Order: sequence, then structure tokens, then C-alpha cells
Amino acid sequence: MIIDCHGHYTTAPAPLAQFRDRQLARLIDPAIAKPVRELSISDDQLRESLQKQLTFQRERGTDLTIFSPRAGGMSHHSGTEHTSVEWTQVCNDLIHRVVQLYPSNFVGVCQLPQSPGVSPANCIEELERCVTELGFIGCNINPDPTDGYWTDPPLTDRYWYPLYEKMVELDVPGMVHVSCSCNPNFHAVGAHYLNGDTAAFMQFLQSKLFQDFPTLRFVIPHGGGAVPYHWGRYRGIALDLKLPPLEELLLNNVYFDTCVYHQPGIDLLSEVIPADNILFASEMVGAVRGIDPLTGHYFDDTKRYLDHLPLSSEDKDKIFYKNALKVYPRLEKVLAEREIAS
Amino acid sequence: MIIDCHGHYTTAPAPLAQFRDRQLARLIDPAIAKPVRELSISDDQLRESLQKQLTFQRERGTDLTIFSPRAGGMSHHSGTEHTSVEWTQVCNDLIHRVVQLYPSNFVGVCQLPQSPGVSPANCIEELERCVTELGFIGCNINPDPTDGYWTDPPLTDRYWYPLYEKMVELDVPGMVHVSCSCNPNFHAVGAHYLNGDTAAFMQFLQSKLFQDFPTLRFVIPHGGGAVPYHWGRYRGIALDLKLPPLEELLLNNVYFDTCVYHQPGIDLLSEVIPADNILFASEMVGAVRGIDPLTGHYFDDTKRYLDHLPLSSEDKDKIFYKNALKVYPRLEKVLAEREIAS
Repeated sequence: MIIDCHGHYTTAPAPLAQFRDRQLARLIDPAIAKPVRELSISDDQLRESLQKQLTFQRERGTDLTIFSPRAGGMSHHSGTEHTSVEWTQVCNDLIHRVVQLYPSNFVGVCQLPQSPGVSPANCIEELERCVTELGFIGCNINPDPTDGYWTDPPLTDRYWYPLYEKMVELDVPGMVHVSCSCNPNFHAVGAHYLNGDTAAFMQFLQSKLFQDFPTLRFVIPHGGGAVPYHWGRYRGIALDLKLPPLEELLLNNVYFDTCVYHQPGIDLLSEVIPADNILFASEMVGAVRGIDPLTGHYFDDTKRYLDHLPLSSEDKDKIFYKNALKVYPRLEKVLAEREIAS
Repeated sequence: MIIDCHGHYTTAPAPLAQFRDRQLARLIDPAIAKPVRELSISDDQLRESLQKQLTFQRERGTDLTIFSPRAGGMSHHSGTEHTSVEWTQVCNDLIHRVVQLYPSNFVGVCQLPQSPGVSPANCIEELERCVTELGFIGCNINPDPTDGYWTDPPLTDRYWYPLYEKMVELDVPGMVHVSCSCNPNFHAVGAHYLNGDTAAFMQFLQSKLFQDFPTLRFVIPHGGGAVPYHWGRYRGIALDLKLPPLEELLLNNVYFDTCVYHQPGIDLLSEVIPADNILFASEMVGAVRGIDPLTGHYFDDTKRYLDHLPLSSEDKDKIFYKNALKVYPRLEKVLAEREIAS
């Protein structure tokens, strides 16, 4: 079995964006009619919109995608806390419909109704709904709800603790994933994404978060931003700070995905990060959609890079599915229930 | 010859910090006496403060360090534009004294008197003074004078063009180097540094800056932040944006240093970035000061990692000094003058 731990619904039918446009337009002009939460998208339209993902799964030989709303679409800075709650529910409900249509291909991870300056305690209700009612197995956490200005507290501040308490109680991990960037200094997928990953890792490194929450787990996507490339720097910083080795300090709680779109990057990732901490992922259909003229294959066909690694079959199993089952413990139960149902 | 293109004066004698403390204290309490610009630091104190750098040069087998004021100390967000001008002159003058004392070991690169919201045109005078009067060969450019909140325009905005015009006229490159971070989300050397590098590269990628300034040159330090690790992502993004290949788009103007503190990182850097675009650097004495328990050598002894690479002697010469002479054309003249003087 091959589990892709990082896919967003980037190909949702137009009525989703229309809902959002209307929702945001009403913030400026309240005379605009309130959009209906039940989107007029038929099951056939959903099926049609997912053909690309399903084809890639088949062609690339992956089985199951851990699937969440489009990251760039979360846009937590837009509107008010209420805007974010409503939009989040609509997005998560749509993921739930996808998962119901294709239970063998997708499992849900939820967006959270974050909002700048609003306590993450406001995310508990939606997280609980998604996990206990919709069968989701994790959440995406935006470390910068301002979408580019970073004025909220770091992920390691007690500000976030109410959310973490619920994550621990439900035994679900969080993928640290920024959304769009409204700061012209930061291109979204070319800078803000990777910078969010790097910033989060360093926040974890300098904190006591995992002493307070020994079972809390985060996946840092995009191969960990700059982190594995600078693993020596981080080992050195930890040493200068008189901290234990990174393995001991962080690697029971922090995992990296494989969304690195060339062979040398994947080679480095697997050389410096233990196989126990790497989760297979592609983020298809996502940030980079073309075919690499140097290889003739899609940049985001990350399974190909992993297939080239001289890893033991044990390590490959960890990366391709065993670590996912460990980091997302609810996955096993969800898969078992579906097995019985089918 | 081996040229280290990235060293900061992190070991300056105490009167420099005392000047700064007094300068900033006066902003709050104008009754405090104005500090004297001529620091009471003797030549012997300067020599004493540089023993570590000189010892490392000797032990590691490097010859010349391109030397600039401490990056974290620039702290451009502090005080007013005037504060920044005064502090910058004091810092640059001290570098000039270092270079005069050890002309075979150091050559100067200047800090600029940047200030949030102030046009970089205000940097022209100090750049000109440092280059034409003090013999400096380049400058450090802080892409985020707010030191962590990124509210000034990107490096590719016309806002910066007056400074670039002067850099082109003087034929000096800029190292893109953030300063400290006053944003608790960003640890300085563990996040803000690398994120600044990554953000700047992506700004260049999506701009027409080098069409407007074909001879403008930037060095991106710390091995280019996350960029080489994600070289496939950037090639893919350029392709999606219908841009030419990165080599053609950027590599006549953008260079990477080798401040990556472990062998796998340097291996990747040299695998994906052409030797023509890599400049040897260590940033000693800097961000990471310890000895790697895995190797028994200093993390920042980057020459060791490069010595292990299977590069041709031609490529090694480029990385160790030829590229530096190309990127910093004034260096050759400065060295020749010193040769005559000695």
C-alpha cells in the first residue's frame, strides 16, 4: 500500500469558488444575497473534478491520498472569524463528500477556522466535528493566519494550547501548512510555503512544546522547507543552545513529507532524516504542474524519486505507508471500517 | 588563493556595542550624553579581537575574508533614519580599520543605512563613501529593514532602483542579508536568515529586474536558503510561468555562497547549482560556533566539505576564488594595490 499524505482539493468545481466570492463580496456590500451553504454541485461534477487525481494515483501507483481543502484557498486573513468558520465548514463538507464517493482513494484532513488575532480555541468545535462525525484523521494548521505578516504568536506559544489539547485527546496530527500570501515579498508556493515550514521547525526546536505535549505530532510539508538542506546548521544551533540531539529533541513529534520535486532533493532528505520520520507525499495536483524537460516526467511524481533510492524494503514501507499509519492512528480504523463496508 | 566571501565582524571590542547602547538609549532619554563616533578602541584591541578569525584562516587554509559589520547588529528597524546612518558609518569605519591593519586577510563590504519606509536612495552616499574612499568592494542589502515584519517593498520593486543604479555604476555586488528578527515567529539564524534568502530568490525569479539591470549582481548567502534543495520546484514554477530556464533567467546575476554546515548540503548545492555560480564562504565566526560531534570538526569549516567534492580543479578554482574575482571586480584592483604597497 502507498499512502500520499499530502493532497489538496485544488480542482473543486466552480460553485465552491462562487460561494467564496459571494461570501467575501457581502463583507463589502451587505445587500448581496447570502450564499447557500449547500453548494449546487452534483456527485457527477465531483467525480468529474477528481479524474486528474484518480488518473495520477493509477498511473503513478499510489493508493490512498490524505486529502484536504486547497491550502491557498483557506485564506484565513479574509473577513472575520465568522467568515472563516462558515468557509471552513463548507470546504470540509465538500472533502467529506469526496471521501464518501471514493472511500478507497481518499481520506479526509480538515481545514481549521483560524482567523488573525482569534484564539485557536475557536478551532476545537470544527476539529471535533470533522474527526468524530466526518471520519477525518487530521488537520492543517496555518502557522500564519495573517497570510504573510506573521503577527500572531508562534506555534509554540500557549495561545495554541487549547487546540493542541484537543488534538492530543482525539489523537490526530496537524500538518503545518500556510495558506496564500498577501505580502508582495512572498510568492505563495515559491517562498511563503517553504518559509512557513522552516519557521515552524525552528519554533519547535527552541521550545518546550513536546515536553508539554509528548504525543502531539506535526507533519512539516514540502520536505521540511529549508530544514534538511541545513540539517548541520540545526544540529549546530541545538548544540550551541545546549539542547539534546535533534533526534531526541524533536523526532518523536515532527515528521517531514516528500514534496521535493527533484532527485537530488529527495536524495538529501533520505540521507539526513531518519526513515522513521519521512512520509510519502506529492501534493498533486498542486504547486508545480508541469513535466520536467530533463526527465520527461511530472515534477510532482515524487514516487519516482523515492523508487530510485537505495533503501531497504523495510525503510521504503515506512516511508510509503507505515509511518502514515503511525502518525495518523485513526487511519487504520477508518480503513478497517471501509473494508467491512465494501 | 582561497577567498571566503562571507564574514562578519562578530567579535568587535565592547566599545562598539557601548556606542550602540548609548545611541539607542538616547532615543528614549535625550538627556543621555551623545556617544562619540570615534570609538576608543586601540589598534591592539582590534588585533586582539581578530585572533579567532586569523587563527581559523590559518588552520583552515583560507587566505582572504570579505568582511562586513555584524549582520544581526545592523538592526535597521531601530530608531530613525538618522540613527541608522550614524550607526552604519561607525560600523563601516571600524571595518575599514580592520582592513588597514590586516590588508592581506580582510577586504571590506559595507553595511547600508537602511530604515523601514525610507527610500534606499538614502544608501547611495554611504555606499559611495565606502567604495571610493575606503576601498570596499560590495555591500550587504537587508531585504527586510523591519527585521521580521516584511512591510517594505520587495527587492525587485522600483523603490530600490536608485541604489541599484549606484551599484551598477560602481560595479559592486550586494549580498542579500537580513539582520536580526524582532518577530517571535522567526529565530534569527535558524529561520529569518534562511527565509530571507528564499524570499529574495523567488522575488528575483518572478521579476524583470535583470532585464532592467543586466550587470547587477547579488550573492544569496547560507547556500541560497531553501533554494537548491527545492531547485526542481523552482524549475517547475518557472516553467508554469512560461519563463526561460533558471540558468538563463537568473544565473548571470545571482550567486550562492557555501554557508551550509554539513556534507550532504554541500553535495546537493554543488550537484544542482553550476560551479560558475557558487562562491566559497564560511560565515565564521558566526551563526554556528561549535564542533560537530559526528565529524570532530567545526560545523562552519565549510572548506572541508568542499575538499571532499569530486570537482575538477577548474571548478574548485572557480568556487574558491575565480568567481569572487568575477562577482567583486574591484577586488582585483584592491589586491593589486596592496601588493604594490607591501
